[in-house]
Amino acid sequence: MQQTANLRKELIHKARRQVTEHYTGRDVHIIRAINVLEDIDFVFNLLFEDVREWYSVHFPELEKMVKGNETYLELIAKICDRKDFTEKNILEVYSNQEQAKRIADAALKSMGSPLEEKDCLRIQKLADKAVDLKKQRNALASYIESEMNVQMPNFSKIAGALLGAKLMNAAGSIKRLAMMPSSTIQVIGAEKALFQHLKTGSKPPKHGYIFQHPLMRAVKRKNRGKIARALANKLSLAAKEDYFGKQDIGTKMLEGLEKRALELK
Amino acid sequence: MQQTANLRKELIHKARRQVTEHYTGRDVHIIRAINVLEDIDFVFNLLFEDVREWYSVHFPELEKMVKGNETYLELIAKICDRKDFTEKNILEVYSNQEQAKRIADAALKSMGSPLEEKDCLRIQKLADKAVDLKKQRNALASYIESEMNVQMPNFSKIAGALLGAKLMNAAGSIKRLAMMPSSTIQVIGAEKALFQHLKTGSKPPKHGYIFQHPLMRAVKRKNRGKIARALANKLSLAAKEDYFGKQDIGTKMLEGLEKRALELK
Repeated sequence: MQQTANLRKELIHKARRQVTEHYTGRDVHIIRAINVLEDIDFVFNLLFEDVREWYSVHFPELEKMVKGNETYLELIAKICDRKDFTEKNILEVYSNQEQAKRIADAALKSMGSPLEEKDCLRIQKLADKAVDLKKQRNALASYIESEMNVQMPNFSKIAGALLGAKLMNAAGSIKRLAMMPSSTIQVIGAEKALFQHLKTGSKPPKHGYIFQHPLMRAVKRKNRGKIARALANKLSLAAKEDYFGKQDIGTKMLEGLEKRALELK
Repeated sequence: MQQTANLRKELIHKARRQVTEHYTGRDVHIIRAINVLEDIDFVFNLLFEDVREWYSVHFPELEKMVKGNETYLELIAKICDRKDFTEKNILEVYSNQEQAKRIADAALKSMGSPLEEKDCLRIQKLADKAVDLKKQRNALASYIESEMNVQMPNFSKIAGALLGAKLMNAAGSIKRLAMMPSSTIQVIGAEKALFQHLKTGSKPPKHGYIFQHPLMRAVKRKNRGKIARALANKLSLAAKEDYFGKQDIGTKMLEGLEKRALELK
């Protein structure tokens, strides 16, 4: 009796340890982080649109005069009321002398309706939160980069850390990515087109997420399939090296790919 | 020649003024604000899910032990590492003696895998931002309430400020809402079911957004259509009074509706 109880205890203990171990891999954090990153990107755009629509009631001309959504939000968070859009105030946020002059000028002539202080306050807080989130996004991107450089040095050297994390996320884990043939890596993220192809015989996809790789834009359009294949090929080897070995093979591979891209230009 | 130029100038001036006036109504701010409010609600839930999924790697038991998403996020933002989940620390955020004890106990036995400091930092910042957004949401709700009480006192007395703002948003402006027959107000927000009804002869919708009104839950299920009709009726009258007159008719109407709901209970 005592023995059975001991055995039971021992087995439960073992099961718990196994569950813990399953989650101990660093990949789970990279996966969570890349998911959060994509969500924050989405949220930032949503909040930006909200601010833009609301603030445009007051100063619709500003939107087209500022480059970059973040700068636009920062200007509003700092200044808001049109009459405070003086060159000096603008330059504190947006260091573009010429454009600052134009904005100050437009502020005087704007067709927008006046804003009360309480409206300004709400819009400013909103703009502020959006900028905050963007900062979080960037900090999170650095986190992912440094994690990827440790966990998958070769893979992320070739793919880039964020794209690499995206591929790993889609595969499910570093281990599963390492087990994948290069033809699968090539079309990760293009599942819809792939199954369409298998079902109806339409053209197979030439690239999934790896389409976002800068080399894809470095070659002629008709050569994209070729460079995608080469890229997926090297990525597959790199993933295996990252999981089973730890040698640096990524640098040389990337050089090779860049050379190949030059040929296909 | 000089005269034509003057006339042209005058006309442009007039057109600009008209554009400005169109946007001068306070309703445009209420409309923007209620849209932002709905977006923030969505964003908060998205970020909460992100935190929950990530943090559950470390301390999966916490989620079910805390009441309220905000409290959960605040606990993580403040404490994070499982070994710091002492009763004392928990009570600083979550003043529930009994539950705090249980959480501290669960933290000791948890099956989750360890978190490094850098992971904690990212999760905490994320939780922090989500809590921030919730605060913004509440400030925005107060803003909408006080605006609605000024612009549509009768309407928002009956509908409640947020539901009232939603209905006004769907109508497009206070003026358009005031022009609507009560049967339209009754089904605002149920457009899909309404057009389905007109097209295929399926049952017409009994209520749109007004289904969210507390009185709808105060009556028997089979009486919901009746109370919805009565509610829409009074709302329509209130909207007209808000736009054309300024007398207080809402208080009495609400009393009447509450009496009616008691009959239909």
